[in-house]
Amino acid sequence: MSNSLKNQCSEYLLEQISAALSALHEKKPLVHHITNDVTVNDCANITLAIGGSPVMAPSIDESAEMAACADALVLNIGTLDKRSIESMIHAAKAANELSIPVVLDPVGVGATALRTESARKLIENARFAVVRGNASEIMLLAGECAGIKGVDSSESGMEALGSAIKLSKSLSCTVAVTGAVDIIVSGEKAVFIKNGTPMLSRVTGTGCMCTSLIGAFCGSIRDPFIGAAAGIMSMGISGEVAKSMLKEEEGTGTFRIRLFDSVSNLTPQRLREMGDISCEK
Amino acid sequence: MSNSLKNQCSEYLLEQISAALSALHEKKPLVHHITNDVTVNDCANITLAIGGSPVMAPSIDESAEMAACADALVLNIGTLDKRSIESMIHAAKAANELSIPVVLDPVGVGATALRTESARKLIENARFAVVRGNASEIMLLAGECAGIKGVDSSESGMEALGSAIKLSKSLSCTVAVTGAVDIIVSGEKAVFIKNGTPMLSRVTGTGCMCTSLIGAFCGSIRDPFIGAAAGIMSMGISGEVAKSMLKEEEGTGTFRIRLFDSVSNLTPQRLREMGDISCEK
Amino acid sequence: MSNSLKNQCSEYLLEQISAALSALHEKKPLVHHITNDVTVNDCANITLAIGGSPVMAPSIDESAEMAACADALVLNIGTLDKRSIESMIHAAKAANELSIPVVLDPVGVGATALRTESARKLIENARFAVVRGNASEIMLLAGECAGIKGVDSSESGMEALGSAIKLSKSLSCTVAVTGAVDIIVSGEKAVFIKNGTPMLSRVTGTGCMCTSLIGAFCGSIRDPFIGAAAGIMSMGISGEVAKSMLKEEEGTGTFRIRLFDSVSNLTPQRLREMGDISCEK
Repeated sequence: MSNSLKNQCSEYLLEQISAALSALHEKKPLVHHITNDVTVNDCANITLAIGGSPVMAPSIDESAEMAACADALVLNIGTLDKRSIESMIHAAKAANELSIPVVLDPVGVGATALRTESARKLIENARFAVVRGNASEIMLLAGECAGIKGVDSSESGMEALGSAIKLSKSLSCTVAVTGAVDIIVSGEKAVFIKNGTPMLSRVTGTGCMCTSLIGAFCGSIRDPFIGAAAGIMSMGISGEVAKSMLKEEEGTGTFRIRLFDSVSNLTPQRLREMGDISCEK
Repeated sequence: MSNSLKNQCSEYLLEQISAALSALHEKKPLVHHITNDVTVNDCANITLAIGGSPVMAPSIDESAEMAACADALVLNIGTLDKRSIESMIHAAKAANELSIPVVLDPVGVGATALRTESARKLIENARFAVVRGNASEIMLLAGECAGIKGVDSSESGMEALGSAIKLSKSLSCTVAVTGAVDIIVSGEKAVFIKNGTPMLSRVTGTGCMCTSLIGAFCGSIRDPFIGAAAGIMSMGISGEVAKSMLKEEEGTGTFRIRLFDSVSNLTPQRLREMGDISCEK
Repeated sequence: MSNSLKNQCSEYLLEQISAALSALHEKKPLVHHITNDVTVNDCANITLAIGGSPVMAPSIDESAEMAACADALVLNIGTLDKRSIESMIHAAKAANELSIPVVLDPVGVGATALRTESARKLIENARFAVVRGNASEIMLLAGECAGIKGVDSSESGMEALGSAIKLSKSLSCTVAVTGAVDIIVSGEKAVFIKNGTPMLSRVTGTGCMCTSLIGAFCGSIRDPFIGAAAGIMSMGISGEVAKSMLKEEEGTGTFRIRLFDSVSNLTPQRLREMGDISCEK
């Protein structure tokens, strides 16, 4: 690709992404979550910070009914059990019927048999708009082996490009891999985002929160590929801004608070100015 | 009412409310919560910040035993399921027997059949000192229809005055509606609080935390009407102080932290000076 | 003991403790938690802040499998129920078989029959490297009566020295009592730490987080006695640093964030310089 074409591609994506944030601010989408106990409060607050409205109704006795009212559904298996997986499937089916986008975060898949089986069960029983994970998780879901240590991976991500394409084709959905370089693929189409800071991996839940942001964007626009890119770029840029605000003696506690600040102050203009996205590796 | 009578009424309420905070600081009430997974940490920290001692024992195998030791019991249906509702009823009955005040936060009632049925079940099986909700929730409980979007409503609240009076009479308890103007009613008696800031609706759990503050006050003084007003005013004033402390580039993350700061630094004097309460609409 | 011997003892302990932090930074231990819903996010973030990697897999269908991959296992009964206790026993047995250290936080034991029975069941079915509690909890476990108010005790702790020694002998493990003075005992051996600030008791979860830090240290070095002392001293010193950073109008909200900051910036050098540990009461 020539430099001029490359620039055109980046410009086009940045236009789409900043327009997505305007759409989100306008729509204030209701994002239903069935998520984990560790970061559920963070997911709610990040959804509010970006301009959405969060709701968490994990019980199987209401999860589908709530999903039917929502603009997007986020499923996260961070602290799954057999009951929560059943509730997720109920909710996803209800959302699928109404064409409400469903976003999956397969936290720690591959780390235990329960997670791997549950992720497969979800995939067999529901259609997803976006699946977002780290490199290990996406490689595992695509059928590759991957060593997993905990749930907070900080691998570079690029090693998972092939797996992401394979998984995207097999599930007919957008697949996003977050890492030092973030990858978003839809079939053969791929874009790469270089925003972010290593500090994001020193706070729990930045992956979960990124998935919530993707949910908020997918609940506001029709294109899950742009929704995934917009959510990931919003997190990356907000991480950079949060890092730049830190003073001496401040550490991960303040960084985490600055992250919410930055997301709540994010504008379409800031996305256009700071976004580092390209159509080539 | 003449201006002089109006002022007398406000003065009287401010005296009662600031005395309630002194009583709370003195007593350090133990506030038992059966609450939701999203904001449970916030409820514990706000209870500590105001000077109380929080305890959360949601299991049906201990919830009633813990309630019997507490100075107040807070029930919040934010992420209810069938088991948690049973546990709440057990705990409420134990509290009722010992005349320990019980405060109900019917989060999202009306949004799903489970929430509506569960709230009704709680009301049928236990007596409450205070029910606090937003306008939609109180109108729904009083038998009016109301559209609900998510669980974080920001309606003005005044449209729910009639419903609040109706509900207060039917349950023989104090009913509080939080919104742009907060309403506290007990039978025909009503007071109105205008403290607060719209930023409170951009952080999850400010409603839940307000209910926890009401619980802490009701565990410290005998009058649930004043307890409800004191909890709501404490939240509103702390929101104003938190907002005023924000610097450029700070957003909802820092605001949330400043809210805990302000509650932890709240004094009877500040309540008297900043409290905006009146006996007329 | 002569002053010179006393100093030698303190010097020796400070050397061991600061070396333990270097080992932790090097190893980045995976710390599996089965813990409570109130402070689970705090436990994850404090584990990351000190340099470890947290994982929470509470379901009985995966807790043992995850424990077998971890460097340490932390069990906390803060919001226990019958299912979570079974899951804890499964996980502890798996850890015991592989000599992975298990740390127990018996939150609120004595406050209800469920907590007391569950703690006894855990003790009968698993071996612990460290048990950490406040004075009431350790006294109760050792068979003494103790009045418990809530789960956030702020007793001085020294009254529990005898109980700690008794419990340590009966369980053949390190027992730590946190309070105004922290006590760490192993059989007849005892050390005393005077770091900390009363503000630590005005934030929920500082006990739970202290136990997570102990878990991270025990997952990095072989000596649970030093691991317990290192975790407790890290929390105490970080509390002092956090307190010293507070400005006017800041309160418990900012203190809590500064605590994460201080833990994330903690160095072996700071432990050596600020550590206040002695081998005599």
